[in-house]
Amino acid sequence: MTEMEPYSNHRLTVRLELKNRPGMFARVADLLAEEDANLGSVDLVSAGPDKFVRDITFDVHSEDHGQRVLKRLAGISDVHVVSASDPVFVAHLGGKIHVQGKLPLTNRNALATVYTPGVGRVSEAIARDRSKAYAYTTKGNSVAVVTDGSAVLGLGNLGPEAALPVMEGKAMLFKEFADIDAWPICLGTQDPDEIVRIVQGIAPGFGGINLEDISAPRCFEIERRLKALLDIPVMHDDQHGTAVVILAALTNALKVVGKRLDEVRVVVNGLGAAGRSCATMLLAAGVSHLVGCGRRGITLSGEPDQLRAYRSNLGALIQEDKPTGTLQDALRNADVFIGLSVGNILHEVDLELMAKDRIVFAMANPDPEIAPELARSHCRVFATGRSDYPNQINNVLAFPGMFRGALDVQASDINEAMQLATAEAIADLIPAPTLSEDYIVPSVFDRRIVRQVSGAVARAARATGVARRRVGHDEHGGE
Amino acid sequence: MTEMEPYSNHRLTVRLELKNRPGMFARVADLLAEEDANLGSVDLVSAGPDKFVRDITFDVHSEDHGQRVLKRLAGISDVHVVSASDPVFVAHLGGKIHVQGKLPLTNRNALATVYTPGVGRVSEAIARDRSKAYAYTTKGNSVAVVTDGSAVLGLGNLGPEAALPVMEGKAMLFKEFADIDAWPICLGTQDPDEIVRIVQGIAPGFGGINLEDISAPRCFEIERRLKALLDIPVMHDDQHGTAVVILAALTNALKVVGKRLDEVRVVVNGLGAAGRSCATMLLAAGVSHLVGCGRRGITLSGEPDQLRAYRSNLGALIQEDKPTGTLQDALRNADVFIGLSVGNILHEVDLELMAKDRIVFAMANPDPEIAPELARSHCRVFATGRSDYPNQINNVLAFPGMFRGALDVQASDINEAMQLATAEAIADLIPAPTLSEDYIVPSVFDRRIVRQVSGAVARAARATGVARRRVGHDEHGGE
Repeated sequence: MTEMEPYSNHRLTVRLELKNRPGMFARVADLLAEEDANLGSVDLVSAGPDKFVRDITFDVHSEDHGQRVLKRLAGISDVHVVSASDPVFVAHLGGKIHVQGKLPLTNRNALATVYTPGVGRVSEAIARDRSKAYAYTTKGNSVAVVTDGSAVLGLGNLGPEAALPVMEGKAMLFKEFADIDAWPICLGTQDPDEIVRIVQGIAPGFGGINLEDISAPRCFEIERRLKALLDIPVMHDDQHGTAVVILAALTNALKVVGKRLDEVRVVVNGLGAAGRSCATMLLAAGVSHLVGCGRRGITLSGEPDQLRAYRSNLGALIQEDKPTGTLQDALRNADVFIGLSVGNILHEVDLELMAKDRIVFAMANPDPEIAPELARSHCRVFATGRSDYPNQINNVLAFPGMFRGALDVQASDINEAMQLATAEAIADLIPAPTLSEDYIVPSVFDRRIVRQVSGAVARAARATGVARRRVGHDEHGGE
Repeated sequence: MTEMEPYSNHRLTVRLELKNRPGMFARVADLLAEEDANLGSVDLVSAGPDKFVRDITFDVHSEDHGQRVLKRLAGISDVHVVSASDPVFVAHLGGKIHVQGKLPLTNRNALATVYTPGVGRVSEAIARDRSKAYAYTTKGNSVAVVTDGSAVLGLGNLGPEAALPVMEGKAMLFKEFADIDAWPICLGTQDPDEIVRIVQGIAPGFGGINLEDISAPRCFEIERRLKALLDIPVMHDDQHGTAVVILAALTNALKVVGKRLDEVRVVVNGLGAAGRSCATMLLAAGVSHLVGCGRRGITLSGEPDQLRAYRSNLGALIQEDKPTGTLQDALRNADVFIGLSVGNILHEVDLELMAKDRIVFAMANPDPEIAPELARSHCRVFATGRSDYPNQINNVLAFPGMFRGALDVQASDINEAMQLATAEAIADLIPAPTLSEDYIVPSVFDRRIVRQVSGAVARAARATGVARRRVGHDEHGGE
């Protein structure tokens, strides 16, 4: 498959045995067309005098649709469905990550170097000076990807086992984009006290903690307490990864429309984990006029100074039960709408309430707050979290470089300055003359990103006193 | 380095700049000889009209000795020590294990398969049926190597960071010998309740738990409670790995001397984690006459039936403060001595108290209970934990295959039957005609071991009802 081939969430590969006579394959193709199942590759597995065996890949709309198509294929006379497989499940067989040793252990010398008795001297050196663990173990390059399975993707509380494939995917992203060794930790508890205690308990072996898919509001308390307890960086990516990329995208979108961050009126819709963190980040970056909406309308508003002072604890200002207006009230004359809520809650007329040269980020997943087809003629810049439209706001742009930079300097924290530096580094990757309505963030496959982001994060860590190591320093083979 | 080159615990590589004139290297070699520092490889790095640069590797007796040799080398006129490095520390730089993704993530299709949106369907499938985690995630092949750093090798309570290189070494062994993906979990607590709670908390993501280097007696309670709580195998390797290999070695040693397990008199000296587990295993295997000694003498003895009934809770029978005799009393007419205590506590005359054709396993580390040079003329079969003498009793012979077999059948436990099957499989690898006083256990590099052990363990798991999967079954790419 090539980069350009659109991804289908429901793709099947079936192996068919067809009688060798004219028109057999046409009957299969006709059936797929009739079912609106998009035909992909057709491979000939074997051909004989009596029969052909072919592997046929096609896209369907849903699991049920796929099952119906399979049933109908099996019903064609002289067609036998040998097997059916789903490439997504095939790719997951046996898991997606594995552990690799740095040396082969094929003789006693190798064993005695990496295990007893040699390893004993390394242990003793670390026992004398704990910071040497950064030099002589995986701690300096490892991140625990921790979830309790309470908010898996947009799918809800699926539990720790069901969260594991997502965490493995995250570990793959860490490795591919930032050469970080991440391991999934899926917790069998959803009690914040226990989660804090468990993560604190396993922290000595890791260089950083990436919290993932933990539902709001528990995620706020869990992250806050762990940041206070641990001397390694802790970041709930659903909050800060997304927030940082939104700030980067907004920075560039404002350049496109010629407005300033400290002047625009911003509406953040949806005040869950990502929404609150986004509001916090925007206030930290200099936004003055910000209104937050929950399900019932405007539940977060205030004077710029007050909002900024409370930015790391916006929950204290949110009045869930006392909305001071509707979403439409909020939209009136707003320059920027940022949706981190649910699909299809905005109409074209709503956008027309906003100021001109409006910017709309509709991040709800999988369906944005307003369909791109409807929105794009009613705003100047439009972005979503989806890969099938321009301006994909994807936290893969942020978290690999953020942790890379933090690990590079043995940072004790990922603080606000490091988050702001990330947003700026991502935004700066697109030179001003290249910016356009449809190009406000780089591609996730732009290999410069991690280098730029990690450098900016490391500098911010040093500037704010949370770096414990100078890059390129401290490495030696002696004791 | 080749297999035969003896391993030195203290090996240094120094880069020297030597003036280019006759006799310079001889002065270096003379100094090393004078210092009893065994010269290894000598590599020429560069040669010029004025000077030679050479990398010289040599073995020393201790860290202090190494420092003294370096200082004296630097004192030779026309010799400049450019750098000195220690191959053990060099091998540990940056840690010894890393995480590898199964697919490269170089295009959107790959991302959408292993991460959102594709992964969402896999998560949903597992949410509907948790057991599918074994098919579609790393759970089915992963083991957490858990320690609290309280008993790191023979070095004592060094803490979790200092234990990390040992746990990484263990993870390398799991990978190399059994293709198991193990990740180190080093705990920042030594409280049994917390350890139990933390391990229970992280268990959903793993297929097994290997407890390691946890001090006695806490290790007994921690293992017992975790085995009761979890539906995945839990094994404290310091107890059972060692015990199983001792049973295998004893089985073969008895064949060599022509005695029977149910008739011999066995003394187990040292009733810590390994000693108690060894006694338990021997009783389970059919030993009738067994006496256990602690520091003060015989503290464990009893009728065969009583010992066997209490075998999984021998602590209840141990009378630490009421020894019923001395170690020498225990040795009188004993056929087998198994030491899991401390170095150099036995004398040649002690061995002469034992019955003829005596078997002595002196497992204390690094110095055995009696030096091999002294012991070997006073017994028929002699074994240690060391790699530089024949008959190395090494738990690497057991744990990789035990977990491999357990994971292969998705076992819920590693029970006594599986442990006994392991010992038998290891013993059986040496055909009777090949057995001799100096060949009672296979080499750790014998690649048949894991296959034999895992097969035997899987069969024992099925026979005892703890297997949840038939090997070679259940794997498919569909839903």
